[in-house]
Amino acid sequence: MASTKTIKAAVLGASGYTGADMIRLAARHPNIEIVALIAKGHAGQPLAQVFPHLGSLELPALVTSDQIDWSKVDVVFGGLPHGTSHAEIAKLPQSIRVVDMSADFRLRDPKTYAEWYGGEHSAPELIKDAVYGLTEHYRNKIKAARIVACPGCYPTAVLLALLPLLKAKLIEAEDIIIDAKSGVSGAGRTLKQNILFSEAGEGLSPYGIGNHRHVPEIEQELGAVAGSAVTINFTPHLAPMSRGELCTCYVRLAGKASAAALREALAASYETSPFVHIVEEGTIPATQHVRGSNYCHIGVFKDRLESRAIVVSAIDNLVKGSAGQALQNFNVMYGFEETLGLEQLPLFP
Amino acid sequence: MASTKTIKAAVLGASGYTGADMIRLAARHPNIEIVALIAKGHAGQPLAQVFPHLGSLELPALVTSDQIDWSKVDVVFGGLPHGTSHAEIAKLPQSIRVVDMSADFRLRDPKTYAEWYGGEHSAPELIKDAVYGLTEHYRNKIKAARIVACPGCYPTAVLLALLPLLKAKLIEAEDIIIDAKSGVSGAGRTLKQNILFSEAGEGLSPYGIGNHRHVPEIEQELGAVAGSAVTINFTPHLAPMSRGELCTCYVRLAGKASAAALREALAASYETSPFVHIVEEGTIPATQHVRGSNYCHIGVFKDRLESRAIVVSAIDNLVKGSAGQALQNFNVMYGFEETLGLEQLPLFP
Amino acid sequence: MASTKTIKAAVLGASGYTGADMIRLAARHPNIEIVALIAKGHAGQPLAQVFPHLGSLELPALVTSDQIDWSKVDVVFGGLPHGTSHAEIAKLPQSIRVVDMSADFRLRDPKTYAEWYGGEHSAPELIKDAVYGLTEHYRNKIKAARIVACPGCYPTAVLLALLPLLKAKLIEAEDIIIDAKSGVSGAGRTLKQNILFSEAGEGLSPYGIGNHRHVPEIEQELGAVAGSAVTINFTPHLAPMSRGELCTCYVRLAGKASAAALREALAASYETSPFVHIVEEGTIPATQHVRGSNYCHIGVFKDRLESRAIVVSAIDNLVKGSAGQALQNFNVMYGFEETLGLEQLPLFP
Amino acid sequence: MASTKTIKAAVLGASGYTGADMIRLAARHPNIEIVALIAKGHAGQPLAQVFPHLGSLELPALVTSDQIDWSKVDVVFGGLPHGTSHAEIAKLPQSIRVVDMSADFRLRDPKTYAEWYGGEHSAPELIKDAVYGLTEHYRNKIKAARIVACPGCYPTAVLLALLPLLKAKLIEAEDIIIDAKSGVSGAGRTLKQNILFSEAGEGLSPYGIGNHRHVPEIEQELGAVAGSAVTINFTPHLAPMSRGELCTCYVRLAGKASAAALREALAASYETSPFVHIVEEGTIPATQHVRGSNYCHIGVFKDRLESRAIVVSAIDNLVKGSAGQALQNFNVMYGFEETLGLEQLPLFP
Repeated sequence: MASTKTIKAAVLGASGYTGADMIRLAARHPNIEIVALIAKGHAGQPLAQVFPHLGSLELPALVTSDQIDWSKVDVVFGGLPHGTSHAEIAKLPQSIRVVDMSADFRLRDPKTYAEWYGGEHSAPELIKDAVYGLTEHYRNKIKAARIVACPGCYPTAVLLALLPLLKAKLIEAEDIIIDAKSGVSGAGRTLKQNILFSEAGEGLSPYGIGNHRHVPEIEQELGAVAGSAVTINFTPHLAPMSRGELCTCYVRLAGKASAAALREALAASYETSPFVHIVEEGTIPATQHVRGSNYCHIGVFKDRLESRAIVVSAIDNLVKGSAGQALQNFNVMYGFEETLGLEQLPLFP
Repeated sequence: MASTKTIKAAVLGASGYTGADMIRLAARHPNIEIVALIAKGHAGQPLAQVFPHLGSLELPALVTSDQIDWSKVDVVFGGLPHGTSHAEIAKLPQSIRVVDMSADFRLRDPKTYAEWYGGEHSAPELIKDAVYGLTEHYRNKIKAARIVACPGCYPTAVLLALLPLLKAKLIEAEDIIIDAKSGVSGAGRTLKQNILFSEAGEGLSPYGIGNHRHVPEIEQELGAVAGSAVTINFTPHLAPMSRGELCTCYVRLAGKASAAALREALAASYETSPFVHIVEEGTIPATQHVRGSNYCHIGVFKDRLESRAIVVSAIDNLVKGSAGQALQNFNVMYGFEETLGLEQLPLFP
Repeated sequence: MASTKTIKAAVLGASGYTGADMIRLAARHPNIEIVALIAKGHAGQPLAQVFPHLGSLELPALVTSDQIDWSKVDVVFGGLPHGTSHAEIAKLPQSIRVVDMSADFRLRDPKTYAEWYGGEHSAPELIKDAVYGLTEHYRNKIKAARIVACPGCYPTAVLLALLPLLKAKLIEAEDIIIDAKSGVSGAGRTLKQNILFSEAGEGLSPYGIGNHRHVPEIEQELGAVAGSAVTINFTPHLAPMSRGELCTCYVRLAGKASAAALREALAASYETSPFVHIVEEGTIPATQHVRGSNYCHIGVFKDRLESRAIVVSAIDNLVKGSAGQALQNFNVMYGFEETLGLEQLPLFP
Repeated sequence: MASTKTIKAAVLGASGYTGADMIRLAARHPNIEIVALIAKGHAGQPLAQVFPHLGSLELPALVTSDQIDWSKVDVVFGGLPHGTSHAEIAKLPQSIRVVDMSADFRLRDPKTYAEWYGGEHSAPELIKDAVYGLTEHYRNKIKAARIVACPGCYPTAVLLALLPLLKAKLIEAEDIIIDAKSGVSGAGRTLKQNILFSEAGEGLSPYGIGNHRHVPEIEQELGAVAGSAVTINFTPHLAPMSRGELCTCYVRLAGKASAAALREALAASYETSPFVHIVEEGTIPATQHVRGSNYCHIGVFKDRLESRAIVVSAIDNLVKGSAGQALQNFNVMYGFEETLGLEQLPLFP
């Protein structure tokens, strides 16, 4: 029987793409009531003005965080950019649970955070309480957490593909090469020249080579499983599409492991995970087959280099890579079905 | 309280885009059980092979219509191309209700059908029973219909914008000019050179000028309301996007009508229609704001030509323009909430 | 025999798309030496940094206009935004000829300029000297002009299609409806939310309905030919492509004129114009068939409304709609072959 | 002084994208007269019908190869698909020189050809005469060749990036991983479902993993330089753009080599090659910066994995990856400036 309890939610950063997709999904969740939309620069504007596609929703206008009566909020979905999230979250009453989609609570070491994100963390004591929100791997911790730090979009796609393999010692922790491709929405809604239609359209190029901020997060999680520090190659590319993320991971096989063994291990690992789908042999993951959904498609392929294999994963960067996974974590935290509010099938074409 | 009855549905033409979107939506409708997927050329294949994005659904493999036990089917969703639909539907037992998305039952005059669709209609007697499925305007007839002929994508966008205005005598029936723009999925999944990515990408051009098959359908419905034959200009264009349809209608104002009066009439006409949204003044309909949803956004604008106004409507050609409206009609036919299974908000970006 | 004289050119506004295409074309013109690139906000930067695709050219770094020795410049190509161009051009020595791509010298009446462009014109006395640079229609005046004001992209496409018809009294000046569609580069390189890839991609919508700044320019030129003031409907749309512009013009036939007569008149009018091509019957103009070239393709089509016809024109907004036409005017001004430096065929796909 | 000799050229396969780009470029080459366009399936049609963007050219209509008087042809540009080219070329008189863009004369071992291309080679004796047309590396051989087998698009981008490094022993021949991304035009104009706009648009996926036909060609050339057989990982991806190819090559550094040393070696190697450009440090190759041009941009980047480096190359698959390189080879064969007819700058945006 369906639960009838209602959780009151506020969305921090409601004017960005992450916030918009959070609203899109949460508004249709049967047990969520969105009570506040927070976006400093847009305070006073109705949602329909900021996001016309959400104009049919009857929701309060956008406000600043000062204008909120926090005693009437149960949970906060954080869609602020990294660096601005930690201060806002530190101000919240302890009674409020937080599902944060920013990078601010993902790295366990505040020094690493300061090094990669260019500034001191203002609430290092909260980091300890935060749980890394890769749902499929940390369900139990998430259930009890006050703060869930949802993984970045790239780490989600990479870790879902590689964590079970490293854990099972089927691949080496050395020499992992990840060639990642993302749609432009991954860069957010802030005005930047390289994400103009005329600049990004009909073109493809790598960016952040060797220094993308998702590197330490991936290395932290792989290292935790490997038992020692892991260094990876991670090379993201900007592709001319709005949504979608594809990670092509080139891995070295451990011992006598084969591509087939990798596939089996992944299938076993995600047997009870409704959103991770190991594609049939002969099928290849493609971003257009997960668009708009919370699914992650993973495929394993034989490499011509005998000691290696190729693991490919595809997600929608704004859904499984952000707002969808946040809602999935919310469901785990509050004891709902993991798929609740996330039943939408991919939109293709 | 939610109804618990289950309607058993078969999808005809399950390998096309219309069929795919029908499956995508019907699979999540709480009162529909999809019992058969029919696609002659793909019989024997699992759905995941034909549409990998639907691979998570546990549905029967595709079959030919001969392989169906029709006694176990309540309703058929028809997604076949025009010209092939009428013969298939004529073969169905009378007990089965039909929601057809093809053009085969839209035109009331079989001669007009033969003239525009290049072939005799094989079941003219069924045309009489068919109801034109523009939900917002024919709810009552649809409720009782055995066969509902869902409008084409263009007619849906045009008629939702113009029918109430013509009915209220706010615009003239003469000199209606409709400049329409459609995404490439409107051309279907059949292989044709002009819809290759390299041909349609980064380009825009009109097509079917003066002879697009949606013309007689629009003229039939406008004429029914005007009380006499109506001739229109309808000029569709192919735009480099997958989904979406925008109709810019240039209309002559009747008597002392003004753009403001048109806006009011439309707002009044759709007050209780959940999917038709008259956008605020200052807002402009855009296909990206309805993508993936069953919404139709309509705006009215002052023209520099004093005697004229501009009415703009935007839909997703595969949802409100096809499968979504079909499901909406299904809901009306079976007494469900009109929005059931159609709650998905637009996917933006 | 090819002329060997060399004209020294400066490009004003070298950091925008118009400036970039001007450099792209001028750099390959056999009789042009680019001696200065001016862009206030980028002074000091090498061109390769501002436009990596032009990195192979050995050109001086960008400078401010103060840094130029104007005595060494023969001609200025103006690529500044409207409103900033007139002041810069007013400062130039009289000996310098100007091919301006901004809107600042297009409107003959400074009051109309002030009304539509929101500010007084600082050099109204120069307007008198300026010639409207629609090459095919004003060659003789352009030859002798000091300042040539190149038409906007939309006016170019519209006027090439309609001027000869209005002049020949084959169409009425009343009730002209122009539904125009442009690629995103038409909006320039300045950061604006609506031209982000994630906003404009996979979407289509009208903008500037009834008040686009190209309206007075079109009305001025149509009025000059009609012999009295002309009011038009002009409704531009933003389409998800980088380059390209398509104008679908709905016109009322005068007297007994027919679509065939219009086609003949256009063909006759442009018989000796190398860049304007009246497409064969059965062929439809498409932006992807003129991309990257200085061509304008025009087609005429019968309308279902008997008293009307449809004239469709397609150009590349940055070439024939801007930098290409500027170079064409330069050729006319200096007595070169009109096609010199503009021989590039369209880039398709 | 410019040469005035005229070479008479025929284009085989004039109805494909490769043929079209060959015509586009050759038509503007000052020393080429296109005397015949051959395309079996389109014989009798004017070029304007097959490729409207080339409609302004006054060229003979398309014909079959039987209809040609080969005594009046000096050179053949071969744009046929692999497997059909060798038979046509074998029939040509010995006096005709051939620049072939198909795969049929690239592999020196007919057995390897049969294995990868699924059929016996009908003219193995001609393979011996054929020279591999990677212009920058085989200029001298090309000069004297009767048949030049232009490299595939991927091999061009990969070999330009890696050959000098392997030759200089700066990288290991083992463990080369190439993650390649191509625009859709690389798949040709033949109708296939996966290259429909609605399938490929807004999506990204790998294909031909481990078995793409360009593998043996890359391995052959790398092996020739390494002095022993080389096995590589080559994983191509289909990206939602029409033109452009980006290869991200992950290489193991040999001895004490560094990314800086690789950069220097490449710069030295291509110092006198006008089309290969090693981008400045801090700049990243991007397909949109070479589009429509014959340039190849290459960048070298430090890897987080200490023993590795990343070499990125970008080309336009139809120009440097096909027709442009063919014309460059033609220039070498006939003693023209290597850049003749290839001066077009990239088209951006």
